[in-house]
Amino acid sequence: MTRIAVAGEPSGRLADAWKFCVGTGRFELALRRDYQESLALVQREIGFRHIRGHGLLSDGIGVHRPYEHGGARHVRHVFTYVDQVVDAYLELGVKPFVELGFMPSGLASGDRTVFWWQGNVTPPASWREWADLVKATVAHLVDRYGLDEVRGWPIEVWNEPDLEQFWLDADQDAYHRLYEVSAHAVKEVDASLQVGGPATSPGADDGWLTRFAEFVDGRSVPVDFVSRHAYTSGPARHHPFGVHQSLAPASKLLEQFAAPRRELAGTALAGLPVHITEFNSSYRPDNLVHDTAFHAAYLAPVLVAGGEVADSFSYWTFSDMFEEAGIPTSIFHGGFGLLTHRQIKKPTFHLYAFMARMGEHVLARGADHLVTRDDDGRVTVLAWAPVDAPAGHTVRLSIPLAGPATSAFVMRSSVSEEKGNALAAWGEMGRPHSPRPKELDLLREAAEPARTHRSLPIIGGSADLDLTLGRYEVTLAEITPVTDETPPWWDDLYPEYIG
Amino acid sequence: MTRIAVAGEPSGRLADAWKFCVGTGRFELALRRDYQESLALVQREIGFRHIRGHGLLSDGIGVHRPYEHGGARHVRHVFTYVDQVVDAYLELGVKPFVELGFMPSGLASGDRTVFWWQGNVTPPASWREWADLVKATVAHLVDRYGLDEVRGWPIEVWNEPDLEQFWLDADQDAYHRLYEVSAHAVKEVDASLQVGGPATSPGADDGWLTRFAEFVDGRSVPVDFVSRHAYTSGPARHHPFGVHQSLAPASKLLEQFAAPRRELAGTALAGLPVHITEFNSSYRPDNLVHDTAFHAAYLAPVLVAGGEVADSFSYWTFSDMFEEAGIPTSIFHGGFGLLTHRQIKKPTFHLYAFMARMGEHVLARGADHLVTRDDDGRVTVLAWAPVDAPAGHTVRLSIPLAGPATSAFVMRSSVSEEKGNALAAWGEMGRPHSPRPKELDLLREAAEPARTHRSLPIIGGSADLDLTLGRYEVTLAEITPVTDETPPWWDDLYPEYIG
Amino acid sequence: MTRIAVAGEPSGRLADAWKFCVGTGRFELALRRDYQESLALVQREIGFRHIRGHGLLSDGIGVHRPYEHGGARHVRHVFTYVDQVVDAYLELGVKPFVELGFMPSGLASGDRTVFWWQGNVTPPASWREWADLVKATVAHLVDRYGLDEVRGWPIEVWNEPDLEQFWLDADQDAYHRLYEVSAHAVKEVDASLQVGGPATSPGADDGWLTRFAEFVDGRSVPVDFVSRHAYTSGPARHHPFGVHQSLAPASKLLEQFAAPRRELAGTALAGLPVHITEFNSSYRPDNLVHDTAFHAAYLAPVLVAGGEVADSFSYWTFSDMFEEAGIPTSIFHGGFGLLTHRQIKKPTFHLYAFMARMGEHVLARGADHLVTRDDDGRVTVLAWAPVDAPAGHTVRLSIPLAGPATSAFVMRSSVSEEKGNALAAWGEMGRPHSPRPKELDLLREAAEPARTHRSLPIIGGSADLDLTLGRYEVTLAEITPVTDETPPWWDDLYPEYIG
Amino acid sequence: MTRIAVAGEPSGRLADAWKFCVGTGRFELALRRDYQESLALVQREIGFRHIRGHGLLSDGIGVHRPYEHGGARHVRHVFTYVDQVVDAYLELGVKPFVELGFMPSGLASGDRTVFWWQGNVTPPASWREWADLVKATVAHLVDRYGLDEVRGWPIEVWNEPDLEQFWLDADQDAYHRLYEVSAHAVKEVDASLQVGGPATSPGADDGWLTRFAEFVDGRSVPVDFVSRHAYTSGPARHHPFGVHQSLAPASKLLEQFAAPRRELAGTALAGLPVHITEFNSSYRPDNLVHDTAFHAAYLAPVLVAGGEVADSFSYWTFSDMFEEAGIPTSIFHGGFGLLTHRQIKKPTFHLYAFMARMGEHVLARGADHLVTRDDDGRVTVLAWAPVDAPAGHTVRLSIPLAGPATSAFVMRSSVSEEKGNALAAWGEMGRPHSPRPKELDLLREAAEPARTHRSLPIIGGSADLDLTLGRYEVTLAEITPVTDETPPWWDDLYPEYIG
Repeated sequence: MTRIAVAGEPSGRLADAWKFCVGTGRFELALRRDYQESLALVQREIGFRHIRGHGLLSDGIGVHRPYEHGGARHVRHVFTYVDQVVDAYLELGVKPFVELGFMPSGLASGDRTVFWWQGNVTPPASWREWADLVKATVAHLVDRYGLDEVRGWPIEVWNEPDLEQFWLDADQDAYHRLYEVSAHAVKEVDASLQVGGPATSPGADDGWLTRFAEFVDGRSVPVDFVSRHAYTSGPARHHPFGVHQSLAPASKLLEQFAAPRRELAGTALAGLPVHITEFNSSYRPDNLVHDTAFHAAYLAPVLVAGGEVADSFSYWTFSDMFEEAGIPTSIFHGGFGLLTHRQIKKPTFHLYAFMARMGEHVLARGADHLVTRDDDGRVTVLAWAPVDAPAGHTVRLSIPLAGPATSAFVMRSSVSEEKGNALAAWGEMGRPHSPRPKELDLLREAAEPARTHRSLPIIGGSADLDLTLGRYEVTLAEITPVTDETPPWWDDLYPEYIG
Repeated sequence: MTRIAVAGEPSGRLADAWKFCVGTGRFELALRRDYQESLALVQREIGFRHIRGHGLLSDGIGVHRPYEHGGARHVRHVFTYVDQVVDAYLELGVKPFVELGFMPSGLASGDRTVFWWQGNVTPPASWREWADLVKATVAHLVDRYGLDEVRGWPIEVWNEPDLEQFWLDADQDAYHRLYEVSAHAVKEVDASLQVGGPATSPGADDGWLTRFAEFVDGRSVPVDFVSRHAYTSGPARHHPFGVHQSLAPASKLLEQFAAPRRELAGTALAGLPVHITEFNSSYRPDNLVHDTAFHAAYLAPVLVAGGEVADSFSYWTFSDMFEEAGIPTSIFHGGFGLLTHRQIKKPTFHLYAFMARMGEHVLARGADHLVTRDDDGRVTVLAWAPVDAPAGHTVRLSIPLAGPATSAFVMRSSVSEEKGNALAAWGEMGRPHSPRPKELDLLREAAEPARTHRSLPIIGGSADLDLTLGRYEVTLAEITPVTDETPPWWDDLYPEYIG
Repeated sequence: MTRIAVAGEPSGRLADAWKFCVGTGRFELALRRDYQESLALVQREIGFRHIRGHGLLSDGIGVHRPYEHGGARHVRHVFTYVDQVVDAYLELGVKPFVELGFMPSGLASGDRTVFWWQGNVTPPASWREWADLVKATVAHLVDRYGLDEVRGWPIEVWNEPDLEQFWLDADQDAYHRLYEVSAHAVKEVDASLQVGGPATSPGADDGWLTRFAEFVDGRSVPVDFVSRHAYTSGPARHHPFGVHQSLAPASKLLEQFAAPRRELAGTALAGLPVHITEFNSSYRPDNLVHDTAFHAAYLAPVLVAGGEVADSFSYWTFSDMFEEAGIPTSIFHGGFGLLTHRQIKKPTFHLYAFMARMGEHVLARGADHLVTRDDDGRVTVLAWAPVDAPAGHTVRLSIPLAGPATSAFVMRSSVSEEKGNALAAWGEMGRPHSPRPKELDLLREAAEPARTHRSLPIIGGSADLDLTLGRYEVTLAEITPVTDETPPWWDDLYPEYIG
Repeated sequence: MTRIAVAGEPSGRLADAWKFCVGTGRFELALRRDYQESLALVQREIGFRHIRGHGLLSDGIGVHRPYEHGGARHVRHVFTYVDQVVDAYLELGVKPFVELGFMPSGLASGDRTVFWWQGNVTPPASWREWADLVKATVAHLVDRYGLDEVRGWPIEVWNEPDLEQFWLDADQDAYHRLYEVSAHAVKEVDASLQVGGPATSPGADDGWLTRFAEFVDGRSVPVDFVSRHAYTSGPARHHPFGVHQSLAPASKLLEQFAAPRRELAGTALAGLPVHITEFNSSYRPDNLVHDTAFHAAYLAPVLVAGGEVADSFSYWTFSDMFEEAGIPTSIFHGGFGLLTHRQIKKPTFHLYAFMARMGEHVLARGADHLVTRDDDGRVTVLAWAPVDAPAGHTVRLSIPLAGPATSAFVMRSSVSEEKGNALAAWGEMGRPHSPRPKELDLLREAAEPARTHRSLPIIGGSADLDLTLGRYEVTLAEITPVTDETPPWWDDLYPEYIG
């Protein structure tokens, strides 16, 4: 493999589409301590801007509370849990990406539900009561957090209405009505709030975006952004507490990210921000692929390139605190999370954490690497073994390092099938479903990236860096030019006994 | 009112039956941050020994997980959430009082449920699978926390089986079978573990205790303690999000506490520890009485005297994080909690916190006061206005204070209809359902006891203390004999400008 | 006293000169935990912008480290402790107001020192080494914290050079040289950094400011702000561990704040920001006045009006962690602090904390009150008993409260000779020098303001508020117009037993 | 090298002499946050029982405060800082090992001092005032912390009186008087308190112990333990901010530990506990050896064997927050600490942390290894490369693992010249004196042990473990027998794409 000469001048800024949003289990789970501890860790080491999940209006949050008084039906809108969750989000430095859904059972027109936790997916029995609910909810947020703040929170109408599981009969006309009523309700609170949709699932949404564009254009319905999801797994073969699926290549994710802009070109919605409000490989919360080193290597090129084709793409989800298929039965169980319960980091967590340590300015971007530079001269390299590469794949770079330094300090952090891989350690431990406290400690230690450091000579303003990669390895090299403060008498300081 | 001369020698130690246990909303809620923050505050200022609630085996915790494999039914026992909760309890310095129940839906013989959160109250479809579930659960606790620890956790079989809501047909024979199977399963893990029942509700349990005694005696079923509940409210008249009830005098609670020992005298269970595993005035989580100063004054004599007639009596519950009647719709809503959501202290919280500041040795106990002394000489007085006393009720004491001190420092802390009463402040605020952050801060400030301090002269080894009480006032006076370290030149130190 | 009708329209914004800066014991003390805990509390409840103290360059911080090597003298500049302190300041949300001083003993021309901790107050033996020291220090701060940040930190040259204790012979010419060398050294790092002086003490600085103005103007020396101190105490009569002093009226402080602008009118320095970089009543760290309720009442009008005549005035100091006269010998000892060791709040702390709860817009300002309003309609009243007022002084206001509300919620917080006064409680305790943990808890409780709340009727768009004040009382009334959410069935919810 | 067959039955318990005590910089430094953060980390990962340092009675703590009043000399004893320090110690789970010294300047008979911070080392001007000081200090501790607690704190009289630097003229008779007066003063507070000495330095203390034994025996002076120090470095050759020294082999430390028991055999003090109240290689706080991997390998056999010959041996010191030779001028500077400022772990920290993870029961102990077992079956191996071993030294063990498991999980953690070695990383960084925040983060990451894990087959009840060691490597292998919970369908769960 020939050495790549990295350019000395940046080609642009690194888009932060990759960290604009992250997914979460249903709203109610955000009340939990383990959830919040995981989110705190994610925010400390990654720092997402927004967070999006289902169930804001479902029964577990208890917003919509009809009652009889004086012979008439009334509704009390209750924000006890909404406030607890949103207060916690803001305290943890992340803002809601609001999803309006699902239907409160007291307002539902039917009893069809989705998930173990039974989110109702039927249209409202009263459109007026739905509009009141949306308006009351958004108005409450504005009252509590201020318009300046809430104006920055995208508000998305429903989730995957193109799937029967999520919307009765996957009826697009009914969704259009829901969107229209909801969007007007939002704008009645304040015209500057951002509303969008249709949050469709890939595969089942043929023609949905263009029909949605026609509908909102034809009826002058407000729309500030367009949203869609992206997944690459095939159908599931079920085993107890787990599934088997095949996966398409990761490039298919980038194609799905790009689809909305392509499909909407020429429509009234062309030019609107496009948010991929969910993405992952498998759409199943019990597919072990999520826990592997493979997964980090598979997604690395997606994180690096996704910002070129979409305004955001939101990893589904940050934590295994997630109950769509029931309560997880084992510490590793194929959950979506970047973290397991109890905060064991998966390789994909590190992929994100590595991205968060990249610099602002892009120097190079390739099929197996990304090189950035900070304003203070630090150069950062993210490299990965392509998932179909043979063992020993090597990334060879010549890194420009201007200035007087004659050497650089390099810290390299790696995750792979061997390194920083708690799933592997867990296998060696006998796969305990409920690890004991000492086992949890060992798993957390095993989950830390392997780190090595060295001094790299700078010759003629550049340094040669060779990164040989293990299977599915993702590695971060942080390169800091050195100012030598070693005093001249340094070598005289060592005691004699030390050979 | 004549002055009471408090004895100089203690009459005995203050039993800690009052803090042996406290109640909680269902097990699953213990995963939540607000719950744990409330529990941390309760433990810091009160310090209960045990905590007891429903739902350990209900679907929300997900312990019992049947699956098919190789054509046969199997069960995986899952402790993901059990461990998270119990780890948190121990970290917060409180131990479980284990309640075995309700029925996992995958093991239930019917679909009858109790509460908004749908706890299944039917017998198991398979007694063997139930025994396995109990054994696996207890064995897991022993494996994780050690036998020495778990041996100290009472294990109670089911909850209020004498009520149809909690046990199908309130069938005592079926309960006896449940008890027998469960008790043997517990003892199979280790014979030193403590198991008991029948956790009956007052009013509906005529004859239950004696029949239970006959049953366990006749079949040599292990039983280490007896449990029962106590409440004093009449039937509920419902309003939206609240009820109206009449209350019996608090002395009825003490009668209920005393009933098991009285009823079991002469049976095989005579002499066993008696735990009142739930008590309160009203049994409704939406009765405003729980939030009032009245409630603290009403319960004060119960806390002071209850330890004379039972080994423990567990206040139901420590926090308004509670969902039996649905998610609370307002910060004050008549919940059982000593604390509201967001940790606003109710007057009854302070009654408990005052008790926690009492000394070890009882000097006096009366209808409106309790006087204790510490080993270091500090004397503590808890006094209260009986709920039917006219305004201005005064407690007059002569307190023995041995030693050389000629004065004592007295800090008095009070809650009443006016003081330390966030409910009153909330009324003046317009009763906002979801207070804004600034309003929460004001409510927390309003919830602190009013405090005053003064110097009390000691003459002839004793000091006269007069405590005039407002309506429903509960007050704590902490009296510390003074060692004077004032230097002789003290008065010369004040600057001139100060009049 | 007639009722004052407060205006409905604000007269302007409340200047934040009062919280621009606060004083601190020497730089080294900032390494301590108790210091940082006090600062954290101060920042949470008050929130100063800057902090200023002595000793950045003194031996206890160890910046200037001469050594011999190869037969020559060298200096290593060491920032081990500087970084620990400044990192902590920024973490606590406060920025340095840098004071350059005193002289490192390895650079001093003499051995004259000030204070128990022996700060050297002689000119440098080498002006070049001093310039290098200043430049290295400032350059290090810029390297570590960024120019954008450090540009906001005023840099003041020395402390009170007009006093012999602080500057050898109080030699103004020598100070001018120090200023000139230092100012140029600062500007060599970056011309946008702010430098100023002369930080003179009142009383001894006749003519200093005008001569300083002539000097810097004549030699084109950079100067970005002017600084001076203010105190009102007379000479000290010493007792063991304490002093007695008389005090001038507080209005003298305002005169001192105003002096620099008046004296510099017409000079080249006219129009520069004026910072009163220290003020207090007594300049002694062992004068009990600092611990009294009197002190809060004495300073209240100064805090309210000081921003009219100076750009800032910095209370000397935030904490009793202070050692100029040696290590404090008792929990209360007349220290400058807003807080004692162990974070007991003094009345003056509350004066500042009350100010921090005032609104942005000034509605009224008088000899015994300040009224403000927030953007959200909350009105805040600070009122105080003038120190020479007879008992029972009453502030009567008519407060404009626009909008639909028919009542307001009022929370009143007070400190006085009786209330929120830990010094009084400590007296009743026998003035223990080293309070036991339980005594500290009682003192902290006694130090909290007394709080009462009530509902105030709004009639015709305004509400009448009468604040009757105890001796030396300072009170805060927070007035929030009420939106009534009480449901119509509220009165039906109380249980019968409650009369 | 032949394989060592580790015994299946323990030979005894692992003595905890190695963690009975740790040394610290002077008492006053314990007020600092960085100090307390380091101590918290040390306690979390190691958990010492006691902590011992100089300066309790020196001026920086301010206990002894003479004053004039009414024409007479009085002394106020002040515990402001003592309480802050001891409260913090107990909160961090460590108890004082009290050292009485040095002399307060107000009580000293001369002005001779030791160290940059000027501890006075002269006898008291008044023996009676010294006795009062000791008695008041000990009585204060008993009052505040309780006799039961303080009875467990050894109280040592002075430090290294056999050296002129620490005790005027190293006068043994004068020390005997100091000891006698102090020991009686301690016992006057309570006869059950433990007092001891003479805390001598090795090399200069020929005959001291036996003369001390004769003295206390002859005059019936109380003595509860004997103390001495141990160091192995030769004389220092000074460079700026550092020294060069030769070191004796580590076995000399064990000889020094053993000396007191040997020397006191047959005297009245035979059989008393022997505490080595300070030990290290070099006695200089600016010798780089303390920061090296060599140091951990050098001390490993000492920690493993020291408990055989002494009751405790206290590493001098836990943190580089230490100022005997002035304020450190660089993050690595050869300080004694297990941790640098800012909590960078040195290899010797990990040696201690590895010891803290060893089990209770000793299975094997050799020249390069220690093997232990827990009650729960976990086996732990500490192995090290002897400092004079050739590269690639290998420890080969056959480990007995009883029970049904067919494999064990092994986590190996290592520090060496390459691994877990922040000093090496710092060298590659250019040895920055004051690392920037990002550099500190990198150094902390570089300081973590390298960890690898694997599955080890168990054949015939034992497993073969080969530990090949790098230069100066110290390694910990934690071996847990495995219970396999892998479900039979596990292999069907992987998605297809994963090769």
